[in-house]
Amino acid sequence: MSYTYSMPTKVFSGKGCIVAHSAAIRAHGSKAMLVTGRSSAKKNGSQADVIKALEKEGMDYVVFDKVMSNPTIACSYEGAAFARKNKVDCIIAIGGGSPMDAAKAMALLAAQDIEEKDLFTGNYPGDVLPIIAVPTTAGTGSEVTQYSILTNDAAATKTSIATPKIFPKVAYIDPRYMAGLPATTTINTAMDALSHAVEGMLSVRASVISNALAKESIRLFAQCAPELAEAPAPQWTKFSEATREQLAQCALLAGMVIAQTGTTAVHAMGYSLTYFKDIDHGRANGLLLAEYLKFVQQDDPQLVNDILAPMQVKDVDAFQTFLDRLLGSKETITREEILSFSQKAMHTKNIANSRVEPTQEDIKAMYLASLQVNA
Amino acid sequence: MSYTYSMPTKVFSGKGCIVAHSAAIRAHGSKAMLVTGRSSAKKNGSQADVIKALEKEGMDYVVFDKVMSNPTIACSYEGAAFARKNKVDCIIAIGGGSPMDAAKAMALLAAQDIEEKDLFTGNYPGDVLPIIAVPTTAGTGSEVTQYSILTNDAAATKTSIATPKIFPKVAYIDPRYMAGLPATTTINTAMDALSHAVEGMLSVRASVISNALAKESIRLFAQCAPELAEAPAPQWTKFSEATREQLAQCALLAGMVIAQTGTTAVHAMGYSLTYFKDIDHGRANGLLLAEYLKFVQQDDPQLVNDILAPMQVKDVDAFQTFLDRLLGSKETITREEILSFSQKAMHTKNIANSRVEPTQEDIKAMYLASLQVNA
Repeated sequence: MSYTYSMPTKVFSGKGCIVAHSAAIRAHGSKAMLVTGRSSAKKNGSQADVIKALEKEGMDYVVFDKVMSNPTIACSYEGAAFARKNKVDCIIAIGGGSPMDAAKAMALLAAQDIEEKDLFTGNYPGDVLPIIAVPTTAGTGSEVTQYSILTNDAAATKTSIATPKIFPKVAYIDPRYMAGLPATTTINTAMDALSHAVEGMLSVRASVISNALAKESIRLFAQCAPELAEAPAPQWTKFSEATREQLAQCALLAGMVIAQTGTTAVHAMGYSLTYFKDIDHGRANGLLLAEYLKFVQQDDPQLVNDILAPMQVKDVDAFQTFLDRLLGSKETITREEILSFSQKAMHTKNIANSRVEPTQEDIKAMYLASLQVNA
Repeated sequence: MSYTYSMPTKVFSGKGCIVAHSAAIRAHGSKAMLVTGRSSAKKNGSQADVIKALEKEGMDYVVFDKVMSNPTIACSYEGAAFARKNKVDCIIAIGGGSPMDAAKAMALLAAQDIEEKDLFTGNYPGDVLPIIAVPTTAGTGSEVTQYSILTNDAAATKTSIATPKIFPKVAYIDPRYMAGLPATTTINTAMDALSHAVEGMLSVRASVISNALAKESIRLFAQCAPELAEAPAPQWTKFSEATREQLAQCALLAGMVIAQTGTTAVHAMGYSLTYFKDIDHGRANGLLLAEYLKFVQQDDPQLVNDILAPMQVKDVDAFQTFLDRLLGSKETITREEILSFSQKAMHTKNIANSRVEPTQEDIKAMYLASLQVNA
């Protein structure tokens, strides 16, 4: 039972929590930079609530609303320059994983001079600007992690900045901001959360604490999944309030898990599906999850049973059926892509982080079984 | 789902974790004060390991080894004066709940001028010395809480200092220090941990995070209990290594729980049993736990089922039988004591913290059913 646990973010959860607990922002300075995508934070009410909280606290602010999906390194430098120019004290990230991850990189780059070639070294001697996170999707868990995952075109994949310095100081979880998310986004982000919880248990760094959180996250996902599977159309938004609340908690718990454990071979395989085939990140993990459990089961059936128990499915086949209802028809992949993606996956750190490590052949077999093969 | 979660302590767990992760002490200064009881830290190897870690880091230290069981306010002021005199940078608490709680009060009093009459106000404007916690029993969870519970003779009970400022910066969980604990201490401290996990679920502040941790803690307790119940004598020490490890984790998780939820009517009732009848704190809670669950069950049977499920017992009677094996023969109490203790319990904040609040009559009935009555 050797492990390290650390998750210093203070979490406020509940409807209206930002305005109710606005003093926790004021504790980090008098001028904030809001970091968002182009429009969703304006539509879902989160940005208005943040501004209301800042006004309540008599704080000044500027807005950087240029973060794209799968944010780039260039965007992070641009935001950091904007933060410096405006002399802000703290950064408030509002959005899904993309604005949160970009904002974390900006908080680092606004406070330290780091060249692009050194951005992923993990060696950041100075302080960073305090980060406050307001998730508006229920998936990434970035509100409680020390990771900022950026699109790295030089390496043709996603690469992580990982340092305890970028744990948000405060996270506000208000499920109302997720009420308008369409079914496709809701399902994809929920799959990302599920993948985090499951991979946490499959990680060499799994501990009694991370497993406790992971099992509860999986249990919450399983409770929500039937309603998600019954969504009548990809743009359907009217999930129950209880489901929205549970999904937000599911993602939060799963974020706390990967803050301890990191992710495993599933994320290693998923990254190429996102980078080269534009498959949503959460969906990419969801596509690969059941096959990876089948692979692990050969070596460690008890571990797989421990994962399936809170899901309340009897075996991996039932788990696959369960996920397939959410995934719908699957994307195609070519044999050339499988070869190339499996090579890339083998070069990630996530492989060695897996309790049962796959070989490149295993990875090829998992891609083959998880997608439709276009010969 | 409105709640606040915060547990900023960094936890290192595993055999040899203090020396392996000694740099985490060095991060908090160059001179430490060790706070311990009279002898156990010297016998169980914990003090030697701390000194080895300090020497490895080139740190200076002084030792304050005068903490008694159920530490007093006077002891806390004495330790604080010693810390000031020796100009230490940080405080390393080594021991069970008593040295850890006393050390937290010392860290506060060494850094701030607080009169005894203001000690429990919760209003501590300045900083405190950083605290590092090394538990040598598996029960209190003080290594991951913001509480320091002191014997308060003026109020004839135990009173808490509660402030996020006294969360330990670092906790080291090494079950080897618990290897020599006799059966009685092992069982009493384990009951304290169980009580924290169960009361956390019974608290008005229970959340999805605290419940996830509580359920895992209860599950671990249940796995260990049969071995504890079979101890051949009160002084027996030879529990399996796996049981020692699990109990340490059970207590840690339960500490993370009460850091969020506080405790409930069970602790409110237990304090008088400890203060006036010298019944060990953990045992006092254990004696009262089943009757309190019976009381809660009348109002909220689902809540009680959620608590019993990870224990794998079918109902509260089975839970009572399960605990009775560990408790052995029960202490006597007089009707006068019941009247007086129930009055005291009603004046604690713990009552209003209970999801199902007992009246004084309910409390009298619970005392009556939990102990032997001496007419």
